[in-house]
Amino acid sequence: MGKTKKYCYGFCLLISVAVNILFSINLYVGGDKRQVISNQSTLTWSEKAAEEAEAVAGIYCSGHGRAYLDGLISQGQPVCECFDCYAGSDCSELSPGCAADADSGDPVFFEPFWMQHATDSAVVISGWHRMSYRYADGTTMSKELENYIRKLHSVVGNAVTEGRYIVFGIGSTQLLNAAVYALSSENSSSPSNVLASIPFYPMYKAQTVFFNSKDFQFEGDTNSWQSNNQTNKMDVIEFVTSPNNPDGELKKPVLGGKTIYDHAYFWPHFTPIKGPSDHDLMIFTLSKLTGHAGTRFGWAIIKDKDIYDKVLNYISVADLGISKDTQLRVLKLIKVAVEGDGMPLFEFSYNKMKDRWDRLTSVFSKSTKFSIQQRHPLYCNFFNETRLPSPAYAWVKCEREEDHDCSAVLKAGKIIGRNGSLFSADDRYTRLSLIKSQDDFELLLKRLTELI
Amino acid sequence: MGKTKKYCYGFCLLISVAVNILFSINLYVGGDKRQVISNQSTLTWSEKAAEEAEAVAGIYCSGHGRAYLDGLISQGQPVCECFDCYAGSDCSELSPGCAADADSGDPVFFEPFWMQHATDSAVVISGWHRMSYRYADGTTMSKELENYIRKLHSVVGNAVTEGRYIVFGIGSTQLLNAAVYALSSENSSSPSNVLASIPFYPMYKAQTVFFNSKDFQFEGDTNSWQSNNQTNKMDVIEFVTSPNNPDGELKKPVLGGKTIYDHAYFWPHFTPIKGPSDHDLMIFTLSKLTGHAGTRFGWAIIKDKDIYDKVLNYISVADLGISKDTQLRVLKLIKVAVEGDGMPLFEFSYNKMKDRWDRLTSVFSKSTKFSIQQRHPLYCNFFNETRLPSPAYAWVKCEREEDHDCSAVLKAGKIIGRNGSLFSADDRYTRLSLIKSQDDFELLLKRLTELI
Repeated sequence: MGKTKKYCYGFCLLISVAVNILFSINLYVGGDKRQVISNQSTLTWSEKAAEEAEAVAGIYCSGHGRAYLDGLISQGQPVCECFDCYAGSDCSELSPGCAADADSGDPVFFEPFWMQHATDSAVVISGWHRMSYRYADGTTMSKELENYIRKLHSVVGNAVTEGRYIVFGIGSTQLLNAAVYALSSENSSSPSNVLASIPFYPMYKAQTVFFNSKDFQFEGDTNSWQSNNQTNKMDVIEFVTSPNNPDGELKKPVLGGKTIYDHAYFWPHFTPIKGPSDHDLMIFTLSKLTGHAGTRFGWAIIKDKDIYDKVLNYISVADLGISKDTQLRVLKLIKVAVEGDGMPLFEFSYNKMKDRWDRLTSVFSKSTKFSIQQRHPLYCNFFNETRLPSPAYAWVKCEREEDHDCSAVLKAGKIIGRNGSLFSADDRYTRLSLIKSQDDFELLLKRLTELI
Repeated sequence: MGKTKKYCYGFCLLISVAVNILFSINLYVGGDKRQVISNQSTLTWSEKAAEEAEAVAGIYCSGHGRAYLDGLISQGQPVCECFDCYAGSDCSELSPGCAADADSGDPVFFEPFWMQHATDSAVVISGWHRMSYRYADGTTMSKELENYIRKLHSVVGNAVTEGRYIVFGIGSTQLLNAAVYALSSENSSSPSNVLASIPFYPMYKAQTVFFNSKDFQFEGDTNSWQSNNQTNKMDVIEFVTSPNNPDGELKKPVLGGKTIYDHAYFWPHFTPIKGPSDHDLMIFTLSKLTGHAGTRFGWAIIKDKDIYDKVLNYISVADLGISKDTQLRVLKLIKVAVEGDGMPLFEFSYNKMKDRWDRLTSVFSKSTKFSIQQRHPLYCNFFNETRLPSPAYAWVKCEREEDHDCSAVLKAGKIIGRNGSLFSADDRYTRLSLIKSQDDFELLLKRLTELI
C-alpha cells in the first residue's frame, strides 16, 4: 500500500507538473496576446465606429461595387452600390449591352492604392472634433495641413511655395471663381475680361456667366480676342490650364495679362514635371492628386498679399471656410502621399496611367477613322528620366469628313464621351476619360476595339 | 528517508496543485479577455487611427483647452490648444486681467454633450470612402442623410418637409446667397431688391454686395423701403430671420414678396417651437443645432421645383457639392440628435441656455445703465409646456443718454461684444454671445457683475 501510495504521489506530481508546464507555455505564448490586450483595451469610445467601418468595408460586392457607411440600408446594413454596368445585390451581374461611360473626370483609378494603404489613410473623427468656426490661430485653415501641402510640393517639385500664401477652397472649383473675383476690376464701368484658350474646361465660362458680376465678363477664346483687339491695354484675366483639360497640353499664357494657372493635372502621373511652376496665382486640387474628388478640397498658391486677402475674403463671404472634418481627412491623405518622398503614390498612379495609354495607343494606332492627341517625351525631374505624358483624358478626333459629330459616332459604338463643343471646340472632337475605375476602362477599351 | 520522500511527494503535489489552481483561475478570468481578443482582433486597418484619436483625446489640457489630431505637433504629439484667457502647456494658467470675449457665435456650449456621447458620435472614414464626385444615384447629396434630416424635423416639429425638396450647402452661409441667386430677377435691367429688417445678420448685406451681381442689389431695411416705395409691385427678396440674430425675435415678413426664411436658430434650446414652419424657402444649419460650426453644413427646404433646381445649380457651379466626409459625419451626428426623439440633445442644450439666461437676467435686473431684450413665454410643442425663449445672444442696450457707443462702454469693463451698427442698428446696442464655452460664459458673467 505504502509503495502504491508512493507511486500515486509520484505519478500525480508528474501530471501536475506537466499541467503546470502546459499552463506556463500558454502563459508565455499568451504573453504577447496579453500585451495586445492591454493595448487594445485602451480603445473605448472609438471602437464601435471602427467596427462599423470595418464591417461595411467587408461587405462583398464582387469587386464591382462598394458598400459605404452612409449607403442606403437594407435589412439593417448598407447595400452594395454597383459600378456602372453591374447589378445584383452583390454587383455580380454584368449587363451585356452596356455602354462604356467615359464622360466624367471621376478619378476612381486611385481607389486600389488607398485600399492598399488602408491603415495609414483611415481617420477617426470624434464627436467634439473642431466644433468652432476657427482654429486656435484664429484662421479657418489648418496650419498643419498647410505645412504638409508645402512639403508635398517640395517633394514633387511642381510648384514654388516659399514666400507664397496658401488658401484652401471647396475643391479647385471654388478657387477658380474666387481668383476671378480677386483679380477683377473694382470699377464696374469697365469690367475685367475673362478668357481661356480653346479647348478649355467649361467651368471657367459657366461660373463667370452664372455669377453675372458687374466686375467681370466672359469673353471666350484668347486667340480670337487677340486678333480682334489691337490694344493690349485692356483689363484681362486669362485662365491657363497646364496640363490642359481636355487635351493634356502644357499651355502658356497668350495675352500676358493677369493669369490664373489651373494646375489641377500638374502631377507626375499625368505629365513629366519639368520643374517647379513659379507664377503669381496657381490652383491645385486634391481630386486629381489622390483621387478624392468627393472630398472637395483644393488650394491656391498666391504671391501677392493683396490678392491673397481678396481670395480669403471670398471664401469667408461665400461660406466661412472649409469643413474641419475635410481638412483633417486631407491631412491624413497628404501625409500618406508624401511618404517615401511620394514614390509609392506616384509610382502607383503613373503605372496605372502608362498602362492605360499603352493599351489605348495600341487600339487607336489601327484606326484611320479616329485619332488621339500626340504626346511628346519630356524629362521628368520627379522620376529622374524622360517619359511620355499620360494625360487624364484622350482627346479623340473623328477624321472622316462626314463625322462632324464625333460623340454621336462614338455613341453608336456604345461609348459615351464629352462633346468637343462643351470645351468650346469643334464637335469633331470628343473627350474620353481615362481615370475612372478599372472596370470602366476595360469596358471602354472593349468598346473601342469593337468600333475600330 | 522513505517518510521524508513521502512528505516531499505530498508537499510538492500540494504546491503543484495549488499552482494549477492559480493558473486555472488566471485562465478563467482571462477567458473574458480572450473573448475580447477575438472580438478586437477583427479590427485591422482602422485600429491605428482609433488609437491615435483616443491618444489625442486623452491629452490633459486642464479642462481649459483641447488637443486635436490636426493640431500643431511638439515633441511628437499634438499640443493643447487653450481656450481664451488660458495659457501654458496644459492650459492651466488663467490670465488674470483677460477680457471676456462674447463676440462670436461659436456654439461651443454643445461640446460636453458630444463628449458624453463619444461612442455614438465618432466616425471612421476609410481612405477609399466616397472618392467619386457623386453618390450611386448620380447626385452629390447623401440620400440617407436627407432621410435623417426629414426625420429630425418630424421629431422636433419645427418644419414641414413632406413634399418639399432639400438641398445641402456649405453651412447655411452658402445657401443664403444661393437662395438670393435663385429668387432674383433674370432681367439685368431691373435687378431684384434684397432687404432685411433691422437689426439683421450682417452676412445678408456682405454677400449681396460682395457678389455684385447684375441680377440683384442690397436695399437695406424693409421698413424704410416700405415707407419710401408706394408700390408693392417691385421685385423684392426679403430675409426673415426667425428667431432673429441678434435679438431672438420671431420675425415675420414685412413686404410680402419673395421670402427667405433663415431658421438657423429655430430649435427648442433657443425658442419654444409653436409648430412646424411652412414656407416656400427655409434655411437651417448644423452649427446652431448641434454646435458643429466648424463642419460647415446647412440645408434648405424648398417647395418649388424651379427654385430647387436653381439652388442646386448654384451649389454645382460654385463648388460641385458638399464634401462626402462632411456628409458622413453629419449623418452620424444627426443620428445621435434624433435618438430618444431628440430629448437627450435638446434637454441638454435647453438646460444650458436656460441656466445661462437665468443667471444673466439676475445680473441685468440690478442695472439701470444696461437692459436686455424682453422675453415672452410661449407654448412649446416639442417640450409640451410653456417656456421662455433662451436666445443665443443677449441684445444689450446702454440706457444712459451719454452711452452712444455701448460696445465701448462694455469694452471699458473688459467685455467684448459686437456693435449694433454691424446689424445696421444703433451703436447704443451690443450683441453678447451666450453660446460659447462654459469658461467663456463664466468670465462674461464675472465681468458683467463687476461692471453692473
